[in-house]
Amino acid sequence: MPLHVVTAGESHGPGLTTIVEGLPAGLELSQEAIDRDLARRQLGHGRGGRMKIEKDAAAVTSGVRHGRTLGGPIALQVANRDYKNWEERMNPWPVEADVPEVHLPRPGHADLAGVQKYGFTDVRNVLERASARETAARVAGGALAKEFLRALGVTVISHVTQIGSVRAPETAGSLTLADFDGVDESPVRCLDAEATKAMVNEINVLRKKNESIGGIFELYAFGLVPGLGSHVSWTERMDGLIAGALLSIQAAKGVGLGDGFDLAGRPGSEAHDEIFYSEERGYYRETNRSGGIEGGMTTGEPLVARVAMKPIPTLTKPLRSVDISTKQPSQALRERTDSCVVPAAGVVGEAMLAIVLAGAYRDKFGGDHIDDVKASVAAYQERIGWKPRP
Amino acid sequence: MPLHVVTAGESHGPGLTTIVEGLPAGLELSQEAIDRDLARRQLGHGRGGRMKIEKDAAAVTSGVRHGRTLGGPIALQVANRDYKNWEERMNPWPVEADVPEVHLPRPGHADLAGVQKYGFTDVRNVLERASARETAARVAGGALAKEFLRALGVTVISHVTQIGSVRAPETAGSLTLADFDGVDESPVRCLDAEATKAMVNEINVLRKKNESIGGIFELYAFGLVPGLGSHVSWTERMDGLIAGALLSIQAAKGVGLGDGFDLAGRPGSEAHDEIFYSEERGYYRETNRSGGIEGGMTTGEPLVARVAMKPIPTLTKPLRSVDISTKQPSQALRERTDSCVVPAAGVVGEAMLAIVLAGAYRDKFGGDHIDDVKASVAAYQERIGWKPRP
Amino acid sequence: MPLHVVTAGESHGPGLTTIVEGLPAGLELSQEAIDRDLARRQLGHGRGGRMKIEKDAAAVTSGVRHGRTLGGPIALQVANRDYKNWEERMNPWPVEADVPEVHLPRPGHADLAGVQKYGFTDVRNVLERASARETAARVAGGALAKEFLRALGVTVISHVTQIGSVRAPETAGSLTLADFDGVDESPVRCLDAEATKAMVNEINVLRKKNESIGGIFELYAFGLVPGLGSHVSWTERMDGLIAGALLSIQAAKGVGLGDGFDLAGRPGSEAHDEIFYSEERGYYRETNRSGGIEGGMTTGEPLVARVAMKPIPTLTKPLRSVDISTKQPSQALRERTDSCVVPAAGVVGEAMLAIVLAGAYRDKFGGDHIDDVKASVAAYQERIGWKPRP
Amino acid sequence: MPLHVVTAGESHGPGLTTIVEGLPAGLELSQEAIDRDLARRQLGHGRGGRMKIEKDAAAVTSGVRHGRTLGGPIALQVANRDYKNWEERMNPWPVEADVPEVHLPRPGHADLAGVQKYGFTDVRNVLERASARETAARVAGGALAKEFLRALGVTVISHVTQIGSVRAPETAGSLTLADFDGVDESPVRCLDAEATKAMVNEINVLRKKNESIGGIFELYAFGLVPGLGSHVSWTERMDGLIAGALLSIQAAKGVGLGDGFDLAGRPGSEAHDEIFYSEERGYYRETNRSGGIEGGMTTGEPLVARVAMKPIPTLTKPLRSVDISTKQPSQALRERTDSCVVPAAGVVGEAMLAIVLAGAYRDKFGGDHIDDVKASVAAYQERIGWKPRP
Repeated sequence: MPLHVVTAGESHGPGLTTIVEGLPAGLELSQEAIDRDLARRQLGHGRGGRMKIEKDAAAVTSGVRHGRTLGGPIALQVANRDYKNWEERMNPWPVEADVPEVHLPRPGHADLAGVQKYGFTDVRNVLERASARETAARVAGGALAKEFLRALGVTVISHVTQIGSVRAPETAGSLTLADFDGVDESPVRCLDAEATKAMVNEINVLRKKNESIGGIFELYAFGLVPGLGSHVSWTERMDGLIAGALLSIQAAKGVGLGDGFDLAGRPGSEAHDEIFYSEERGYYRETNRSGGIEGGMTTGEPLVARVAMKPIPTLTKPLRSVDISTKQPSQALRERTDSCVVPAAGVVGEAMLAIVLAGAYRDKFGGDHIDDVKASVAAYQERIGWKPRP
Repeated sequence: MPLHVVTAGESHGPGLTTIVEGLPAGLELSQEAIDRDLARRQLGHGRGGRMKIEKDAAAVTSGVRHGRTLGGPIALQVANRDYKNWEERMNPWPVEADVPEVHLPRPGHADLAGVQKYGFTDVRNVLERASARETAARVAGGALAKEFLRALGVTVISHVTQIGSVRAPETAGSLTLADFDGVDESPVRCLDAEATKAMVNEINVLRKKNESIGGIFELYAFGLVPGLGSHVSWTERMDGLIAGALLSIQAAKGVGLGDGFDLAGRPGSEAHDEIFYSEERGYYRETNRSGGIEGGMTTGEPLVARVAMKPIPTLTKPLRSVDISTKQPSQALRERTDSCVVPAAGVVGEAMLAIVLAGAYRDKFGGDHIDDVKASVAAYQERIGWKPRP
Repeated sequence: MPLHVVTAGESHGPGLTTIVEGLPAGLELSQEAIDRDLARRQLGHGRGGRMKIEKDAAAVTSGVRHGRTLGGPIALQVANRDYKNWEERMNPWPVEADVPEVHLPRPGHADLAGVQKYGFTDVRNVLERASARETAARVAGGALAKEFLRALGVTVISHVTQIGSVRAPETAGSLTLADFDGVDESPVRCLDAEATKAMVNEINVLRKKNESIGGIFELYAFGLVPGLGSHVSWTERMDGLIAGALLSIQAAKGVGLGDGFDLAGRPGSEAHDEIFYSEERGYYRETNRSGGIEGGMTTGEPLVARVAMKPIPTLTKPLRSVDISTKQPSQALRERTDSCVVPAAGVVGEAMLAIVLAGAYRDKFGGDHIDDVKASVAAYQERIGWKPRP
Repeated sequence: MPLHVVTAGESHGPGLTTIVEGLPAGLELSQEAIDRDLARRQLGHGRGGRMKIEKDAAAVTSGVRHGRTLGGPIALQVANRDYKNWEERMNPWPVEADVPEVHLPRPGHADLAGVQKYGFTDVRNVLERASARETAARVAGGALAKEFLRALGVTVISHVTQIGSVRAPETAGSLTLADFDGVDESPVRCLDAEATKAMVNEINVLRKKNESIGGIFELYAFGLVPGLGSHVSWTERMDGLIAGALLSIQAAKGVGLGDGFDLAGRPGSEAHDEIFYSEERGYYRETNRSGGIEGGMTTGEPLVARVAMKPIPTLTKPLRSVDISTKQPSQALRERTDSCVVPAAGVVGEAMLAIVLAGAYRDKFGGDHIDDVKASVAAYQERIGWKPRP
């Protein structure tokens, strides 16, 4: 069956649940690998208080036995440790207490459209699910997808290339896996030491002005075979599938593959990746402007995607809004106080990309045990004479 | 049932087929509306010879009776008028003639990954389906989605904002429907007369250098109710769905919603759209930086999306490649000679956006006859006190 | 979004998880309604010891607040109270202890095909998920679908018509909702007192012979509007959707709609339901041979479906099998000791039917708040002049 | 991508269209194989006049080149030769002529529910699509699925076991492929010569009484590997998927797997298939009561399913109905005059079963070229030591 990841859970409810369907049996998993990504999602300069009170961990309650997948749905539970303080406000069942409603929709959030769509009088009924807290459930599911990819020689990783007005030096799709060593040690998950300093400074300066800060992160996937996705149907093209998954991340507003928007301004002779062949390497490219996607398929070069994140819309300097019960102008609710989430968003991006790529491997190679999948991948690599890029 | 658009057909085969499932019954359609969009897809300065020999028309062969939909699948057939010259090379069934294979994969196309994935020795088996010719079938299907949207007061339209290095003046999400009058009269489908001239010149100059030219087009949808899509599940978010559909367009490499990548560099106070209310207008915004999407839902403001197109990879000055039978370096095949397709791509973008939006209306409002749908939309507009933007 | 119910969990693992996506907001739910169906699933003459040690209850951990749905995914957790005795054998993570494998696949179960498909050496890796224990998670999800249907005036209910060789008197699609009063008080959930006695006796007699016993249950849905499902596409026909859901129940081997297999032997004049009309009733039928489905759509008459259950394959008198490690003949493992589950299976059937029907209402009527849905249903009933059957 | 078959077209419109997505590249197809099944669908004692005027043929217009699949969507067009006589009544676009409406819904058909659901005043808007004519498009698509299965050593075939009150001798899941030789030469597609005579007589007798006649057909699939489908999710179980596809056939009212409803009445010791092993055969069964499905998966034994067909509801002796414009009682329209379609329905059943099984092979084995698929199947058969049944 195709890979399918569904999440449930509100920000201050009892907890988050993820179900991952479609991984093969026999895949080795570890609690550490899951929790490591959950921890990485909580890092980054610019995060607010909640990240300190909660260390997320995911309890696996089905689909795994003695460290190996069983081939069926895997359920993961990430408790909201703070729920004890919210039991009245967020109880699934009626409570005695009189719980006040939230009436101020925050610009830039799901709040206003959400109460309109769902017919609510209480903005909390929207914001609890719309919160980026939900991305912890995605990251938990994505960690499983990553383990599956890892078993096939594929690594998905991200780095931050822009925070506010500060841009890291351009790398033009040329990074190798080794370049990412230590990326998590930068407080903004940036590969460039100078840029890191400037980014931290940017955050500090803007935070003092009660501003939030956006930015851009870039994703790489190394080790992908050529021919994932397909040109034959628009619903099967990897570029569309990847863009769809990445722009579903809260606060993401743009996505580019390879050189993305820059390609629009270049002449054709500088916009593509010429094809070469050598005995040792098979077919290869000397550039990677396409970001490893041509005709809706992976090319066998590293996959590169960029995601633009708007500054999070919850500001310590609130924006103007309207009270939905009185219709009077007012200032938007302040719900939490992260000022910059771009480094963490990169980890969410890894999860979403891994989910799409794992799904593409499942579609292309089938197999019910991980060894079946590995054998199919190996046979295909052999058939096309492809070797993983170093 | 959800809206579902599937296309079939090769560039030089007998023809293209589209099936559209999920439109309600009773919707008025016209041959003219479908063929008008097919003609718009063939326009634009920078197109090659084929656009002149073929005037596309779509024959409806099912699902419509006496000009109204029957509620079932609608099949559209777009013949390839040139097939008579290709009957041997592209016949579905074996032919006597010895048909030579194509062995030179073109960089930037599906060619190389396609032959690897599908195990072909003949690049033609890939390029015929990967060709942007397929977008005629999408446009035919999209024309039906547009008619459905039109019945609900929604218009989807595009304009070109960049060709090569030439950019039209920034409009920042502020256009109204009236601003699009005459857009198709510009040879590059640009709203600005000065920019049009410069763009035409850019194409002429680069074409003489045997270059192809990319660019950016921008899509607007006017009249959308708030609350299409949802924050509740990542697979339901309109931003992801829209990005997925748009980046499935051949040669699209980037997508942004509203101010897109520009938002990454702005402080939070300049990145969102404050909320206002007045008796006459209901809730409204004075800016539209979000492009009419917040929290994965439409806001009731015009939807704005931008798509970056790379220069098409088939150059009159061919790129280096490798013969897949001899493994010797060579120069890529020249299959066709459009030099710039950005104006046409905008029409394809309209089709894809219309398909996604029509699907969102079907999901949210249900209904089996168009009058059921209209009644549900009207009741919802009444419930939330929303009036279409002028 | 369409209604989507996914379950996870093994029989002796930490617990079961269900996620239900696609219910509208504002729907009133209660813990009691969910747990009532979980309890009904555990009843019935012929159940074994486990039903006594475990009283299932479902904890809602998301998607519901203060007793009303939020419009997003609803997660339900049903703990396996017995897990404490299985922590070594079923731990998700590696354990110190040496856990013996199961090597005897049971005929009639997923065991043999499962170990082949998934490449296991331990049958337990299959049987834990294949167990009908999983139906508790379906029933929990189905209880939500039932509450949604109840809000629209629809009731789904089952009764047992055959246990082993004992058949209840034929009722030919003529039952009314009132006829089901007290059905749960029969130890075999049969509406006929005489048949109940004979069925209990059948179970007692066969159980003493170490046999298991199958049977047939019949499902009714009352209050369905005409026109759910559609004739326009095979994937939209209600008969196919219902049959698909019901034959996905563990041990189900046959399904019939209305008079089902009996219709095959009748002349056309006795196989259909003639159409009548009266001012008070609108269109109506005096027979219901079709089981309320014509042309893949509901007719407005009660929906009637029958499901044949084989005797459960775990016998106290075990069947011959083969040890998968030694390939030697042996006798199949005895894992549990229910002898007859037909009365409980009817409750599972209710859940599956409710899930399909709730999905059909979602598709046809859309709506994001339950009041939107109710208004659309009311408008449709008005349009077609249909009144619920008494 | 998963196998996906969509059909479009009305009974007297321009024609039928099928699109089949998801077949691998390189699969050899032939016009003959497709048309042969189309012809088989038109045979059978008891068919009316239309079968004589129309010899169906399917034109492949995409996805196939020189007799081999290209990996993309395959479009098939089956013209309605009779359309020239219906051009006014069924024209997609408005006509000058005054086309009279049909106001008499036929009991047992989609007619009444269809006009209610879709808000029509003309029953023709429903009956044209609801007609079993649509099954020609399924059979065309199914023929491709069969060719795919044939390449993997799988054959799907049907025979008729009951016509009206006449039953063929019971064969209890024991038939081999060789037993089906010549089945199409029986005018009722029955394997037993005596029963054939009695069935033909039954049709003749009832036809003279202006009755239509139903019956039962049985499907076999030979050569299926164990482990198609899965126990892990209800949506993945083969029993549910098969039942869903078969009960989506027009006029089908019941489905059983293996011994189906008969299993309900048997003791457990006579309801399952004990497991044996021998060096030469691997695991095998001496009975096939399960119909080759256990735990939602294929067992490696022949798959057996039975489908009950009601008598077609269009009688030469019409049933009572109501004029939907006047609400006056009247007699139902007589649209066509087949009296028995069970033999043809078996061919439709083959198509639907082949579509489900081909999809299961695609899911389990992946692969983009047919040789990839074959290699994966062979590796799996090797891994589990399974040999096709003779």
